[in-house]
Amino acid sequence: MKRISVLGPGTFSEESAHHFLGAVPHQLIPCKLIADVFQAVVSGRADLGVIPIENTLEGSVSQHLDWLVHEVDLPIQAEWVYPITMNLIGRAGPLEGIREVLSHPVALGQCREFLRARLPRAEVIPVGSTSEGARQVRERASETGLAAIGSAASAALYGLDILAGHIEDHPDNATRFVLVGPEPLVLSRPGRSKTSLLVTLPADFPGALHQVLSVFARKQVNLVRIESRPTRKRLGNYFFFIDVDSPLSAQPMPEALAELDSLGCSVRVLGSYLSHGV
Amino acid sequence: MKRISVLGPGTFSEESAHHFLGAVPHQLIPCKLIADVFQAVVSGRADLGVIPIENTLEGSVSQHLDWLVHEVDLPIQAEWVYPITMNLIGRAGPLEGIREVLSHPVALGQCREFLRARLPRAEVIPVGSTSEGARQVRERASETGLAAIGSAASAALYGLDILAGHIEDHPDNATRFVLVGPEPLVLSRPGRSKTSLLVTLPADFPGALHQVLSVFARKQVNLVRIESRPTRKRLGNYFFFIDVDSPLSAQPMPEALAELDSLGCSVRVLGSYLSHGV
Repeated sequence: MKRISVLGPGTFSEESAHHFLGAVPHQLIPCKLIADVFQAVVSGRADLGVIPIENTLEGSVSQHLDWLVHEVDLPIQAEWVYPITMNLIGRAGPLEGIREVLSHPVALGQCREFLRARLPRAEVIPVGSTSEGARQVRERASETGLAAIGSAASAALYGLDILAGHIEDHPDNATRFVLVGPEPLVLSRPGRSKTSLLVTLPADFPGALHQVLSVFARKQVNLVRIESRPTRKRLGNYFFFIDVDSPLSAQPMPEALAELDSLGCSVRVLGSYLSHGV
Repeated sequence: MKRISVLGPGTFSEESAHHFLGAVPHQLIPCKLIADVFQAVVSGRADLGVIPIENTLEGSVSQHLDWLVHEVDLPIQAEWVYPITMNLIGRAGPLEGIREVLSHPVALGQCREFLRARLPRAEVIPVGSTSEGARQVRERASETGLAAIGSAASAALYGLDILAGHIEDHPDNATRFVLVGPEPLVLSRPGRSKTSLLVTLPADFPGALHQVLSVFARKQVNLVRIESRPTRKRLGNYFFFIDVDSPLSAQPMPEALAELDSLGCSVRVLGSYLSHGV
């Protein structure tokens, strides 16, 4: 039984964890803050933690990355990309009666066209999370005309109905999650093997980054993501998150990493793992 | 008089706008959602809009970037980097009496050490924004033992005291904001001139990106930021946000951009502007 710490309850993080862990016996440990998700793993109360890492409305990506870099040393053991489907949830009744829609501000923004077309007179009320919106609709049981926007998981959690599904303006909205923890975990489903690197450049940005990418280009290593972030040390000093296609390995790409080292770069392997889509 | 749409009231976005606009006669138009900030500019109700673009707890950076790319065509006219200083705010009294601390989940995460050391028995309550926390503390006037974490602006807005200042765990926390709008604006303060580009690669990522960076390296153009994002069109198709040092110009770097074009890249100039620090 894997104990998995995750933002929750009623979040997309949870919903995605249930989807991808599927047949793996697991128990979710819902946490209020991302710091608590990490801390549960560090303290041993959880085996693995679920961290939204890109395009998320559950917390701040940059803060999650900063935690991975500065605060904890937990390897990435798996990654999944989960489509975010927004639902209008509440108590059954005609949409015309709805006068307040509660949700996370980003979720409200993602359903702007739906709200304008179908609920033009409803007021939008930003709250702390999509599941908090559902919770408030449940709690204010005596009031009519309330709805929330959120996950199917939050509708189920608070005993509410899905009044309309797939209400997001752009159906291609997906969030990337990584699963971090000390022990490897392999999900028995198809995946693409990747390695995530944290590369700190020795000095000037343009020349050095160009050299780093030369190493990968020469070795025909396919980059799938790159992002620069200022280090906390001083302005003008950068590190990069670089994801590349590479076979699963405890010591991935030894030659390429040795070359980067000889260029004066400091390289940390954040994980070698399988990335899964739905 | 410049009319400036901004997330608000009581946000760090607002606080930073007042700081940087300073002597420029301006009037802030507070908006609940980032979509409303953009929309106010598009509709002409505002001259410029303030968009948090990196390391922010006010909305989702990726969604803000997506708006800039897909939904609106508003050039970046200025950028500022504003240090985010967290305050414990509430009604004057000893910290020992505090049993609930309300704030945005990311702000709570950024003050974790302070909370552990100084308020170990207080419960943290995630709410929709830092100013929403202050608003609730104000509203629940008859209750004692409540505090919020947020901006000095939100304390002033809701008539609360700053019980402790600079309570964030890492003092080097700063948010990058861009000011977007159809007409140029020059703040009369020192700045670093930059150009932001959106570069879409023709095909394979590693080789093409390497060629793009070769162009900049050869022309001694200094890169200050790079970030890859999947396009909405199909998997495996990427674009890049690239910021470079370059002189202010309505048509920046014509030669480099022509070379990128000849490589088959599609390039859009998001803005040529001054970037300001505190």
